[in-house]
Amino acid sequence: MGEFELINHYFAAAQCAQGGEGVALGIGDDCALLDLPPGEQLAVSTDTLVAGVHFPRVCDPGLLGQRSLAVAASDLAAMGATPIAFTLALTLPEVGEAWLRAFADGLDRMARRCRLGLIGGDTTRGPLSITVTVFGRVPAGQALRRSGARPGDLLCVGGELGNAAGALPLVLGEREAPNALAQPLLDHYWSPSPQFALGQLLRGRATAALDISDGLLADCGHIAKASGVALEVNLHQVPVSAALQGFVGPQAALQAAVAGGDDYVLAFTLPPGQLSSLQAQTPVHVIGRVLEGQGVSLRDRQGQDITPLQRGYQHFRETP
Amino acid sequence: MGEFELINHYFAAAQCAQGGEGVALGIGDDCALLDLPPGEQLAVSTDTLVAGVHFPRVCDPGLLGQRSLAVAASDLAAMGATPIAFTLALTLPEVGEAWLRAFADGLDRMARRCRLGLIGGDTTRGPLSITVTVFGRVPAGQALRRSGARPGDLLCVGGELGNAAGALPLVLGEREAPNALAQPLLDHYWSPSPQFALGQLLRGRATAALDISDGLLADCGHIAKASGVALEVNLHQVPVSAALQGFVGPQAALQAAVAGGDDYVLAFTLPPGQLSSLQAQTPVHVIGRVLEGQGVSLRDRQGQDITPLQRGYQHFRETP
Repeated sequence: MGEFELINHYFAAAQCAQGGEGVALGIGDDCALLDLPPGEQLAVSTDTLVAGVHFPRVCDPGLLGQRSLAVAASDLAAMGATPIAFTLALTLPEVGEAWLRAFADGLDRMARRCRLGLIGGDTTRGPLSITVTVFGRVPAGQALRRSGARPGDLLCVGGELGNAAGALPLVLGEREAPNALAQPLLDHYWSPSPQFALGQLLRGRATAALDISDGLLADCGHIAKASGVALEVNLHQVPVSAALQGFVGPQAALQAAVAGGDDYVLAFTLPPGQLSSLQAQTPVHVIGRVLEGQGVSLRDRQGQDITPLQRGYQHFRETP
Repeated sequence: MGEFELINHYFAAAQCAQGGEGVALGIGDDCALLDLPPGEQLAVSTDTLVAGVHFPRVCDPGLLGQRSLAVAASDLAAMGATPIAFTLALTLPEVGEAWLRAFADGLDRMARRCRLGLIGGDTTRGPLSITVTVFGRVPAGQALRRSGARPGDLLCVGGELGNAAGALPLVLGEREAPNALAQPLLDHYWSPSPQFALGQLLRGRATAALDISDGLLADCGHIAKASGVALEVNLHQVPVSAALQGFVGPQAALQAAVAGGDDYVLAFTLPPGQLSSLQAQTPVHVIGRVLEGQGVSLRDRQGQDITPLQRGYQHFRETP
């Protein structure tokens, strides 16, 4: 089987997962073609996952498939976009039929969950690496940006934080835990749920939004910088799961929640008047507020500044 | 400098290369946003280049930058699309400032030539690999597909073939040649010219089109298969450059032209009645014809079938 048949063969399920609303032409030609309803804009985001950097070199290919797509799709949720489709650039050291089948199955599961159709890609031989580009649509001018937070807004998140960072010792096989604790954490790591519904609800309500991938404090820093404001996070308001607390203890759970990455939960700023109508439709956790100034500070229950110096993980931390 | 500043810093030139026609929001948020004029469709294509597979591990980063974008952009030309923008997923073993600056400069040169603005991407640590996703627009229903060739059509190409394949021994440093021969071949390899103008002229005229990346015979096979027809190529009509003939001799030049890849010249099928009006506007080389049947045959001047068994390069030739 040649390169040309490979993606078609293994990824046929994901390709037709959603019947192709907005997809005028899928895999098989030089380009895919997308239709966009009048008055809408196309949202585009690209994410790369590299073996040994973003995921363990040895891992379940089905879990890897679903995680690869979810991580990229979360950026659509963060803009308030409705998912349309994605492309996959897959670099593989060799073609193992079992590996490919499992990876494609995992990808397909997440494609169905996210209502994203596979419209193209490229398969090449090389060190294992996965680049996913996702496409969504959003009414013109209504996309959620990072730059609109205003002093007086509430700082909110869409769910519990720290589960993925807490799961890392389990993912890497460094620790074990009873299944009741381990499973929810591993699920969160391998199968994040992009918050599409929340993102779409936030259109016209939130003043700024993003998805937490680098860690709460690091990502709040992005909102603060883009909006020209200061953000204050109240540690005791940050929601953490019972599983995470049970696995690492309450203190380390909060540490994972503010500094760990890979949550793929939305963080957003909200004028106070919007809170009750939003909470009537979806769970919202208020964890702080927007102030004049710059930067992000972390406060304890007494209002003391306990901002850590290290704010989440960055690739290429050292440059020459 | 963190991951977040890296692309912005080095790729700022490419980012604003074109003033962003169709780009509503570029780098810096969770997604980029594109506007599409009413009645147009978005064309999307993704290509990955891996060090040691698609280009030498040691090469000029500026040349690599321009080639990476041209290879991907050529797919837009093949659909008859007008370029809008691209994203870049760059995986690097380390951050070398000189390397990045040169790569970004090369990318920027090609971005300006193609009128493509950089709208986003992802930079990660890992084995060197470059994934480019390109975006263009095309009037709804007018994109050039591979599937419309009809018996009686002429088979045409938009320029000389085989230069890039012929250049390989020069690229790899295995052979030397006088500059007058070497330079045009190396230019073709490192700086392909996507045939946007030709592609746009072919809208409403050509019945099928693609860009030659896997080699003339292999790519003709894609048209034949997608269209359910046979294609006949007359070897003596295949255009080859003086530089290629001078470097490898006339016989090997034709061999490179039919079996070598990386030409990024358009191949298309054309109703005979369209030929003269098209030739009045742009050079067109008729190299064969479309017949009832299937597959691709290569004919010599006497009409003898000299079809080789091996048709261009494929990744993953052996599968378990």
